[in-house]
Amino acid sequence: MKVSIVGVTGYSGLELVRILHHHASIDLISIHATKNIGEKLSDLYPYLLGICDLEIEAFDPLAIMKKSDLVFFATPSGIAKNTSHIFVEANFPIIDLSGDHRLPATSYEKWYGQSAARPEILDQFIYSLAEFTSVKGKKFIANPGCYATATCLALAPLLQNHFIEPNSIIVDAKSGLTGAGKALCESSHFVNIHDNYVTYKLNRHQHIPEIVQQLKLFDSSLDYIQFSTSLLPVNRGIMATCYAKVKEGVEASELEIAFAQTYAKKAFVRIQQELPELHNVIGSNFTDIGFAYNSVTKIVTVIAVIDNLIKGAAGQAVQNLNLMMGWKETEGFCMTPHYL
Amino acid sequence: MKVSIVGVTGYSGLELVRILHHHASIDLISIHATKNIGEKLSDLYPYLLGICDLEIEAFDPLAIMKKSDLVFFATPSGIAKNTSHIFVEANFPIIDLSGDHRLPATSYEKWYGQSAARPEILDQFIYSLAEFTSVKGKKFIANPGCYATATCLALAPLLQNHFIEPNSIIVDAKSGLTGAGKALCESSHFVNIHDNYVTYKLNRHQHIPEIVQQLKLFDSSLDYIQFSTSLLPVNRGIMATCYAKVKEGVEASELEIAFAQTYAKKAFVRIQQELPELHNVIGSNFTDIGFAYNSVTKIVTVIAVIDNLIKGAAGQAVQNLNLMMGWKETEGFCMTPHYL
Amino acid sequence: MKVSIVGVTGYSGLELVRILHHHASIDLISIHATKNIGEKLSDLYPYLLGICDLEIEAFDPLAIMKKSDLVFFATPSGIAKNTSHIFVEANFPIIDLSGDHRLPATSYEKWYGQSAARPEILDQFIYSLAEFTSVKGKKFIANPGCYATATCLALAPLLQNHFIEPNSIIVDAKSGLTGAGKALCESSHFVNIHDNYVTYKLNRHQHIPEIVQQLKLFDSSLDYIQFSTSLLPVNRGIMATCYAKVKEGVEASELEIAFAQTYAKKAFVRIQQELPELHNVIGSNFTDIGFAYNSVTKIVTVIAVIDNLIKGAAGQAVQNLNLMMGWKETEGFCMTPHYL
Amino acid sequence: MKVSIVGVTGYSGLELVRILHHHASIDLISIHATKNIGEKLSDLYPYLLGICDLEIEAFDPLAIMKKSDLVFFATPSGIAKNTSHIFVEANFPIIDLSGDHRLPATSYEKWYGQSAARPEILDQFIYSLAEFTSVKGKKFIANPGCYATATCLALAPLLQNHFIEPNSIIVDAKSGLTGAGKALCESSHFVNIHDNYVTYKLNRHQHIPEIVQQLKLFDSSLDYIQFSTSLLPVNRGIMATCYAKVKEGVEASELEIAFAQTYAKKAFVRIQQELPELHNVIGSNFTDIGFAYNSVTKIVTVIAVIDNLIKGAAGQAVQNLNLMMGWKETEGFCMTPHYL
Repeated sequence: MKVSIVGVTGYSGLELVRILHHHASIDLISIHATKNIGEKLSDLYPYLLGICDLEIEAFDPLAIMKKSDLVFFATPSGIAKNTSHIFVEANFPIIDLSGDHRLPATSYEKWYGQSAARPEILDQFIYSLAEFTSVKGKKFIANPGCYATATCLALAPLLQNHFIEPNSIIVDAKSGLTGAGKALCESSHFVNIHDNYVTYKLNRHQHIPEIVQQLKLFDSSLDYIQFSTSLLPVNRGIMATCYAKVKEGVEASELEIAFAQTYAKKAFVRIQQELPELHNVIGSNFTDIGFAYNSVTKIVTVIAVIDNLIKGAAGQAVQNLNLMMGWKETEGFCMTPHYL
Repeated sequence: MKVSIVGVTGYSGLELVRILHHHASIDLISIHATKNIGEKLSDLYPYLLGICDLEIEAFDPLAIMKKSDLVFFATPSGIAKNTSHIFVEANFPIIDLSGDHRLPATSYEKWYGQSAARPEILDQFIYSLAEFTSVKGKKFIANPGCYATATCLALAPLLQNHFIEPNSIIVDAKSGLTGAGKALCESSHFVNIHDNYVTYKLNRHQHIPEIVQQLKLFDSSLDYIQFSTSLLPVNRGIMATCYAKVKEGVEASELEIAFAQTYAKKAFVRIQQELPELHNVIGSNFTDIGFAYNSVTKIVTVIAVIDNLIKGAAGQAVQNLNLMMGWKETEGFCMTPHYL
Repeated sequence: MKVSIVGVTGYSGLELVRILHHHASIDLISIHATKNIGEKLSDLYPYLLGICDLEIEAFDPLAIMKKSDLVFFATPSGIAKNTSHIFVEANFPIIDLSGDHRLPATSYEKWYGQSAARPEILDQFIYSLAEFTSVKGKKFIANPGCYATATCLALAPLLQNHFIEPNSIIVDAKSGLTGAGKALCESSHFVNIHDNYVTYKLNRHQHIPEIVQQLKLFDSSLDYIQFSTSLLPVNRGIMATCYAKVKEGVEASELEIAFAQTYAKKAFVRIQQELPELHNVIGSNFTDIGFAYNSVTKIVTVIAVIDNLIKGAAGQAVQNLNLMMGWKETEGFCMTPHYL
Repeated sequence: MKVSIVGVTGYSGLELVRILHHHASIDLISIHATKNIGEKLSDLYPYLLGICDLEIEAFDPLAIMKKSDLVFFATPSGIAKNTSHIFVEANFPIIDLSGDHRLPATSYEKWYGQSAARPEILDQFIYSLAEFTSVKGKKFIANPGCYATATCLALAPLLQNHFIEPNSIIVDAKSGLTGAGKALCESSHFVNIHDNYVTYKLNRHQHIPEIVQQLKLFDSSLDYIQFSTSLLPVNRGIMATCYAKVKEGVEASELEIAFAQTYAKKAFVRIQQELPELHNVIGSNFTDIGFAYNSVTKIVTVIAVIDNLIKGAAGQAVQNLNLMMGWKETEGFCMTPHYL
């Protein structure tokens, strides 16, 4: 299978290159960006010398459809929506890693502050949190956001089993800097981040609506969540620390069973006996989850950790591709957490 | 005034040395530890060459009382309680930076897992969160813990004004590694902390009872808090992110007034218009506080940041000393946040 | 004495604000920048709330000369040279922290790639490595560069005593990111620096000519140095690791005496028995120096560490001001190394 | 092929586990340590859950030889030498990652400060810098040290072609903390390393003799090197910055050809046009090399970077195994540099 990447020089695009390099069934045929057209990717990123020496091409939907079998959009939000209709109308498969096809138009316009793709195009896309969505044979995938992935996987067992008060959820999420993208701005300057911890977009992070949308699929009585995001002085990794009030009558042991059963057959979710750390998963497609129940406050704390560029972006995109194609879910993933 | 430091080689002890160096009314007369007796402090810590070249002495209460006017205990919890009675019985002033004299005996024994000082000794000590405690003329001070300082200062205006549901409080607190002390253990090895974020002592951190004890002074109907602590890969700094349900009928503007009024005359607390970052306060005795109200969830998020070694330990101890002596609260503090 | 800062929002400018805050003889009267005119400095930099609430003013030489007694240029190189003549011609004192008045015109133009100030203006300036230059009563000071300060202080005792082969010097210097300035560029993005170590401007760093110029004052037979600079993933601090061939017949003990004697009466230079680390000096105006002689290779390794923003910029500028005015060299320096 | 790892809980041992996990021709059959016998490796290191759930066994040479085909020693120096003779006498293959079999007995005893293995055992071992040593069919491999690997690969083209003065070499090498091992000591405590840069073992690092021994194979007229090692505040990565005087008459273009030709057919060495950074290679078995010639000083600066745990330890060990067995040199290496 031949694939193309649009937005290859972003963090998610570069990570797709790495992951696809070892995928036996996939051939990366073209890479696209808006700058550095005609340059070898490995000239720009010497770490890829000998791994990906393709030349960067300008974005051209027709050319991509001619030579490739699927396109990944690894572009910032606000790009894919402008041309996705060309592919959709030609029934050419898309996996969009950006936020452009995750929400209904009105919600997108409210949270992203810009016009949405046409509703009939949005309708073609399926939002696929890979562990909970059936995408075999589908053609248009909206790949979840990084914070959304960690948060929804943490809370799914509790909401599906109706063990927690749905409107009691508070999520204190933390991300490494790659989650903030490559744009050069004050808030990504080394000196401003190093030795610091910064809370941003409080109550207005654009992942909030996609989280609520997905959590409602688990428990339709949920209306909202309290959600905060902060920047950790690390490159990779998200921890979603989730607090929720356990319903009266629910035993701690039931929580344990719920987590174990929900993920018993999921290759990329591991329930850990101890609270997981970022180190558990960095460099891999795993989501590690741990939890603790406080019998005084009746609050359960659930902690989920992911590598934001892998399970939170490029890895889950390849996982979704494997599932679309009916391949083994773990195909091509030879990455273990590098831990240190 | 002559003072002595017991436990000088710990982080809080070393920080006391730095702060007292510029205090015009204080003369550091002796420093004590259990190891390296007879060595110059600056031979062990070359950064202090020319700043503190005193020799380390063995701990000897009678010798201290003979030559000094006050003793700081900057020892780990579990040390000061064993000899504090000698000083108390001699009516010799103590400022204890450790946890040994902050709690009633039964509570101490439950949370610290060891025997407490005698109740009549504990009764002599006053727990002094400096902004809310009157210590002029007092002799025995229990200096608050670092997490407790940040958390209580963040929540005081809301609880004193009865603006929040007292049992709805969830605190997600984060600390740099100096908060975990100098002990050599797996969890302080560089490789295990760097590029990581680790939650520890969930629901069992020993600062929980002193926080509840202090918060009850603000609102006696509070019974408990949900409290988590994590290690940030930085050396200094605590951020306490506090979530609480705002009572019906309370307006956001009232919250703003409460914060402004509570701290209007407090030299070391600053209400910031933007959510504060660790960088705001590192290197200084400031507590910076910011907050945001979510009208959907009715939750107010309050963020307080401190330098855990200064406002969270040695700085507040000197602030308490200034207040005990009736000196200007800011006496000796020539440290501005170093920011970068 | 009233002073003004031009370029207050750069790292050196901000650090000047901090240092001058506690200088009893100096009153910071005005601050200048090209952006954010009319805004309070503490609105832009909340860590300065209550410390410096002055409004930023546009740069106006005549206005400065009217209300102030001295101007600090804390601007990037290429700015001060354009207006310094206005102050010089009015005999109004300048301390320039930038590179604009450190070199003869031809050398400046070669290494900085732009036109220099007029030679008759450059002639008025004295390059003042504070430990080795007599500036009492002088009016126009070119403050040394950060790398130059560390390197020259490390090598002075060896060159002045003619103990090393002057053309054998190799300096492997490392700096934290504040040394690279606040400009937003790929090379200062957090993700590119964190967990990395990057060598840059090899053989073409603009501090090379000022180092050679100063070292020639110590030993006129020196023609060149081999000099490399790299970025450390820290905010503050420079280490200059200097290697040089010791001349035949020179004993290791002589080296020791040379270092001790050269700096015996220098308040801000400390000779350490162990090789110094960055932690020794961060937050202070100290230069710490250590060395080791290898009897197999006949090479002496000298290591000097400084805080690049203090001794390498704003601190040395204030030290130079103290010396200009005939005040105590340490006046206003209440900063001890914060170590952690 | 079945293999066993002795010292599995050290950094190199854990990294061997990761690398071997994807090696199609190798089956990790047993893991050995001195503590935690009987515990699953993944209980101690939850990041390995599902990747290596083997139980740790006590070290027993006979049991290993019975069930396995080769043993990796990933133990600290001073361990393997005590039992290697049992395997050697049974002609059972060993790859020793420690320093125990790299040097002649007298040299080992001088630099390691302890007794060496018996000379007739040492004679059986071949020191294998994989790019320059022929090990096909060999049974006993001494795997090079991390600093030695980076330094020797950097200098080989220059020495083999006699382009530099052999006794002019100065190496300023820097390593992340994993290079210092897992031992708990002051110098590995997070607070002492973070925001710091520390030079250690100056002129007495135990890799010096193995470097000189290997470099003499390239140019027998070399007698010594000047070598310094420092700790960078990162987990992984070594940069060896090498300075050497270029012989008269050698052209810069000749240097370029030498590097290109020497490594033209080496899968794991890449000559980069720009000076390499740590990010180039972290997570991979690559050595990236760049250089620059200074026509004023006649000094060439060569920079080599490696991941100290992969090319500097476990990766090169597997590379050596591949070469011993006559397999493809890159067999099992599905790790690309993770860059960020």
